[in-house]
Amino acid sequence: MPDHALTPERIIAAAEETLRRFGPAKATVVDVARALGVSHAAVYRHFPSKTALREAVTSAWLSGVRQPLEEVRAGSGRPAAPLLREWLTVLAHQKRDRALRDPELFATYVALVGESSGAVEAHVSELVADLTGIIAAGVEQGVFRVADAGTAARALLNATSPFHNPAYAEAWSRPSFEQDLQDVLDLLLRGLS
Amino acid sequence: MPDHALTPERIIAAAEETLRRFGPAKATVVDVARALGVSHAAVYRHFPSKTALREAVTSAWLSGVRQPLEEVRAGSGRPAAPLLREWLTVLAHQKRDRALRDPELFATYVALVGESSGAVEAHVSELVADLTGIIAAGVEQGVFRVADAGTAARALLNATSPFHNPAYAEAWSRPSFEQDLQDVLDLLLRGLS
Repeated sequence: MPDHALTPERIIAAAEETLRRFGPAKATVVDVARALGVSHAAVYRHFPSKTALREAVTSAWLSGVRQPLEEVRAGSGRPAAPLLREWLTVLAHQKRDRALRDPELFATYVALVGESSGAVEAHVSELVADLTGIIAAGVEQGVFRVADAGTAARALLNATSPFHNPAYAEAWSRPSFEQDLQDVLDLLLRGLS
Repeated sequence: MPDHALTPERIIAAAEETLRRFGPAKATVVDVARALGVSHAAVYRHFPSKTALREAVTSAWLSGVRQPLEEVRAGSGRPAAPLLREWLTVLAHQKRDRALRDPELFATYVALVGESSGAVEAHVSELVADLTGIIAAGVEQGVFRVADAGTAARALLNATSPFHNPAYAEAWSRPSFEQDLQDVLDLLLRGLS
């Protein structure tokens, strides 16, 4: 590939592939450049350090997690209670599906995300903001009653984290996953109303 | 120590000390016997294998976790709602306090518990049974309304697990731990009533 055809998106895609192949401990910028057929200087023109490239990969992955949640919310004049249940269910399913489909790649991303606490905090803040919006809409619709929508949003995310926080990924293949999730959501939704 | 003075309790205490000193990968029955000043044959008379001894240590630790919960429930003609909040708070505090006080020993126990899935299942079943009893009492008192107390108990344990499941121990030193816990309990208790 000629250097001028190189875009950040292509570099990120190649970095993902390299991480998948070599694992997070070993993948280097030189490996990424080699996979793209460009010089490592060309990669450094877009990402000034290995750390910067890894953070871009992490952000891309976290955005990928959030995108289907955005789709759930899109065009939502929908009632808040089923919307909230769907949003939290999609969050859980997505994480579980990624973890079960390719456990090694999932572990790689979890390791990367762990390196960059800023990216995690930003991601969690976005999720809390999304949830706060859904809860506030429910309060307006008269279906939820909470003292503070932001506090309720953080509590919801904490209480459902066994179903979406990678620290729990080992337990996601259990047969009762879906029933356990819906039982927790039943209780939480009753708590909001 | 003469062999005849050897009790299971003394062996378990010495095994805990040995595990603390050498770590779970290295601690052997010979180390335990040496710490007690007895032959390893004497230890094997009480515990037929290293695995049996480790399981006894694990069970003793899990019983230790449950004991303060029993004290919370003891003499409980108390109203179910504050009792439930206290029970779940004590469960969380205990785990957090053990993890923060001696992180290495905590990690040792977590590793041991992970080896013996039967002990974990039995422990979780006991916790679910305790919670089911508290919820059923609340239904009788007219303060809780649930379709099935056992289902609600499992949901409560799942929803609070970020505060007591060791998979999350890394996050237990955060300053917002207590507020986060109480916010989740507020939501769950409202969900039960």
